[in-house]
Amino acid sequence: MQLNIIKTDGKARACLIETNRGPINTPAFMPVGTLGTVKAMSPDELKEIGAEIILSNTYHLYLRPGHEIISSLGGIHKFMNWDRPILTDSGGFQVFSLSALRKIEENGVHFKSHLDGSMHFLGPKEAMDIQSSLGSDIAMVLDDCTPYPSSYEYAMNSLYRTIQWAEQCKALQREGQALFGIVQGSLYEDLRRKSVEELVDIGFDGYAVGGLSVGEPKENMHRMIYFTASLIPADKPRYLMGIGDLRDVLAGVEAGFDMFDCVMPTRNARNGTLFTSEGRISIKREEFKTDRRPLDPDCDCYTCRNFSRGYLRHVFLSKEILSMRLNTIHNLYFYLNFFRDMRKFIMEGKFMEFKTKWAEIF
Amino acid sequence: MQLNIIKTDGKARACLIETNRGPINTPAFMPVGTLGTVKAMSPDELKEIGAEIILSNTYHLYLRPGHEIISSLGGIHKFMNWDRPILTDSGGFQVFSLSALRKIEENGVHFKSHLDGSMHFLGPKEAMDIQSSLGSDIAMVLDDCTPYPSSYEYAMNSLYRTIQWAEQCKALQREGQALFGIVQGSLYEDLRRKSVEELVDIGFDGYAVGGLSVGEPKENMHRMIYFTASLIPADKPRYLMGIGDLRDVLAGVEAGFDMFDCVMPTRNARNGTLFTSEGRISIKREEFKTDRRPLDPDCDCYTCRNFSRGYLRHVFLSKEILSMRLNTIHNLYFYLNFFRDMRKFIMEGKFMEFKTKWAEIF
Repeated sequence: MQLNIIKTDGKARACLIETNRGPINTPAFMPVGTLGTVKAMSPDELKEIGAEIILSNTYHLYLRPGHEIISSLGGIHKFMNWDRPILTDSGGFQVFSLSALRKIEENGVHFKSHLDGSMHFLGPKEAMDIQSSLGSDIAMVLDDCTPYPSSYEYAMNSLYRTIQWAEQCKALQREGQALFGIVQGSLYEDLRRKSVEELVDIGFDGYAVGGLSVGEPKENMHRMIYFTASLIPADKPRYLMGIGDLRDVLAGVEAGFDMFDCVMPTRNARNGTLFTSEGRISIKREEFKTDRRPLDPDCDCYTCRNFSRGYLRHVFLSKEILSMRLNTIHNLYFYLNFFRDMRKFIMEGKFMEFKTKWAEIF
Repeated sequence: MQLNIIKTDGKARACLIETNRGPINTPAFMPVGTLGTVKAMSPDELKEIGAEIILSNTYHLYLRPGHEIISSLGGIHKFMNWDRPILTDSGGFQVFSLSALRKIEENGVHFKSHLDGSMHFLGPKEAMDIQSSLGSDIAMVLDDCTPYPSSYEYAMNSLYRTIQWAEQCKALQREGQALFGIVQGSLYEDLRRKSVEELVDIGFDGYAVGGLSVGEPKENMHRMIYFTASLIPADKPRYLMGIGDLRDVLAGVEAGFDMFDCVMPTRNARNGTLFTSEGRISIKREEFKTDRRPLDPDCDCYTCRNFSRGYLRHVFLSKEILSMRLNTIHNLYFYLNFFRDMRKFIMEGKFMEFKTKWAEIF
């Protein structure tokens, strides 16, 4: 995996990440394919709207259908029929957010499946084994995602665990699979700094920032985004995990982050909340009943080229599968297009113009 | 609308129905698009698998979103982005099968919406008005669908109502919209004969047979299929309504029917029951867990070209939207391909060979 910085504009940057499965132009948005499918989308449609990389969840695939099964079906790419890059998270975040019961030990986490209550164990070795079986292009180290709020002492202990696990993951890195470290440290600047230093010492193919957007005030989140980005070496991809609110994305890109993922466009789509050039709208609004216009006249997606707001409202209210499809296509297209435009503005040295424009809309 | 008989093989026939919106090669299967969408499919996908005509339900569209709304959005074709032929039923069948409460009068039926319990009235005038607003290519007369079992007297009275309504519908036929009569008469041959004679006297663009597959023994259904088909003039399309079990389709085509519709392929798909060259299979079967083979090695659909049985099982068990999509694509492709093959065999004078082969499988 090779990072080429094409252009910088302030700290914002447009890069090209070269992988064996194709290029990733950054800033890049990664649609989330939790269970081996980006909900409501086919792989062909994802390509058509220009997705260059998607994310899949280790925790979910480990529980269902199981990584050995995916491995025996030819690995995650063949399994889901997606031949472009895939990043897998380590499962750590879901263990912390979904599992009803968990017990953290030095070597990993005991947790209860949110599906059937069965007990499982996830440590650095397991996280690496699973991601190796899946065969993703980019694996993530297992981290201990520090909750908010956390005392300094708790955050520090949690951070040291993350670093220890990162070292163990690094030792198990599989050839041909990139491995990213994860920066923790809650809202404590010295811990964030320490975290980056230790990870850089170990040496990873990229650096992700975790433990943000976990309930802390936006102001603090943005402060940490700017602070932490500047610590990460410029020659490696910087990934701001799980953050997809567009204002936060703008902050992240301004700070120098390259990669983003979030379920927001896909989840909102299924709930009828759609992103347009004029802001967020709810498709169920009464006024759309006989509205012949496309959802967003400025949009070239399949949905906007072919269907009226009146139709989109009807299929949404009728709970038709096509509603979730058309809404998801639109929202993901909007996101990917937003990122492509942002890249263009960076290339032209006008990122702040782009940021100002969109900050007014969202 | 013009019917050209291309080839007959016994009573089975291959025809070309020419419409303003494109050709319909028969025997033809019409996927059902109840609420202005064939469930789980996009219009593009329907074209890709070769659907030449679809069916939409007047009853459902009248209740939701309402025919005036569809009309103000440019008519049913523009509404759902489908530029090929659309046949609308009259709503009669759903009034009888879905509405909890109905009162038949000389001029039509009072019924209670299955959605919100509101009261509505559907008579020949209303059925024609609604279908005219929708702007379908083929409209159906309002019929009184005789339940099974019915006494001779009940069936006769019901039939006379149907004929009276058919006359009234005919008088209201809109230019540019074909209108089909509907043959009733339960299992009584003389009533079926009477029904056809009266309808032919009125004169329609095509003739449909209703009131079958409503609970009667298969043997009786098949007897009526053969008996009634032979009464309908050869120079008009013959449509066997709501019948899609493939054994019944084979009987219908053997008897001389041209058009068919059924929710079976789409509904079964969503329930995980799939049609293959070796018969029906349930995709959730344990043995498919690590099965790398396509669902049906003989099938060229998008699903079979790109996904393993193991993956299809996984997305089905995970209740992913993509499961319903991939299963529906496959089942509809199977049906449409079955009809295309059947046509080929008729063209070669080998329909009975085709029938024998498939009768063994299903």
